[in-house]
Amino acid sequence: MTQAKTLTVTLGDVTRDLPTVRVGAVGRVPLVEFLGDATFTNAAAQAMLPLIPEGTDALLTVVTNALPLTHELSDRSGLPYVVARKKRRTYMQDPLIQDVPSMTLGVAETLWLDGPHAARLKGRRVAIVLDVVASGGTAQALARLVERSGGTVTGVIAAFRQGTPPLAVHALQELPTSI
Amino acid sequence: MTQAKTLTVTLGDVTRDLPTVRVGAVGRVPLVEFLGDATFTNAAAQAMLPLIPEGTDALLTVVTNALPLTHELSDRSGLPYVVARKKRRTYMQDPLIQDVPSMTLGVAETLWLDGPHAARLKGRRVAIVLDVVASGGTAQALARLVERSGGTVTGVIAAFRQGTPPLAVHALQELPTSI
Repeated sequence: MTQAKTLTVTLGDVTRDLPTVRVGAVGRVPLVEFLGDATFTNAAAQAMLPLIPEGTDALLTVVTNALPLTHELSDRSGLPYVVARKKRRTYMQDPLIQDVPSMTLGVAETLWLDGPHAARLKGRRVAIVLDVVASGGTAQALARLVERSGGTVTGVIAAFRQGTPPLAVHALQELPTSI
Repeated sequence: MTQAKTLTVTLGDVTRDLPTVRVGAVGRVPLVEFLGDATFTNAAAQAMLPLIPEGTDALLTVVTNALPLTHELSDRSGLPYVVARKKRRTYMQDPLIQDVPSMTLGVAETLWLDGPHAARLKGRRVAIVLDVVASGGTAQALARLVERSGGTVTGVIAAFRQGTPPLAVHALQELPTSI
């Protein structure tokens, strides 16, 4: 019987053995799961508070995995947050539509920011919040949404950075790209 | 210029003017947005604590709108929570796949529960958590997922009930189906 490989990480005073999942021929990558783990989420949010750049007055994230994390960060920092979606919602009014630059041809993803939500970023200094930043494509698309909304990006903060994304990311920890 | 209709609701000590959106020829329905509003989310979670049925030892929800709400309810109750997805994720192992009964032919939705997450519901007494219950289809699909995981449903709790769903829902407030 094969023992499942795990990766042990500690955020604040909370330690988790992350399961690893096979990805193509590359090997195994650790799976970060904030959904379903309020204790781990809260520890990450608390540890990320000092990563919020000075002068930030709003947060922007995207569904789904960083959602409880950003909620907690908003609650603990007192900063409002805005959420981009990955699908058009029927109720959206004049949404901003932003393609995510993709590493692999043919696998495109599109972000949707509802018009009234974009209005909340206008004139704001906005930090982008993610759970894991790897290729950086999602972070870049969120940064474009901030600019197109009339806001300014103060920085990208994440619980984990994986590999070498092509933009500055303030992260709590590095994750291996293959273990 | 037309004044946008809103609906004022109060949860705990937090009051919000919900925007309303046009839906088909039916008129306008109120739009409940917990995403992007940590204060409203926390007020709902605190008010929903007494709705959790006696003996419940786990919570189940589905992405996306009830996610920060369920995170907060888990944090405040100390009960673990599990999240069903609406798309297959590449990392899922032996997921349970459950169709949502639909009112409208041809608009089907499917829920995915990762195998290791289903295992966390086995033998548990599970409350289903949603933001709004209207047709009840999503709640019914989540209930089936609990049963198929080897758990027992203790009840369905929601911030809002809209109309007359065909199952018992413990909700904080009624929402009009049209205003």
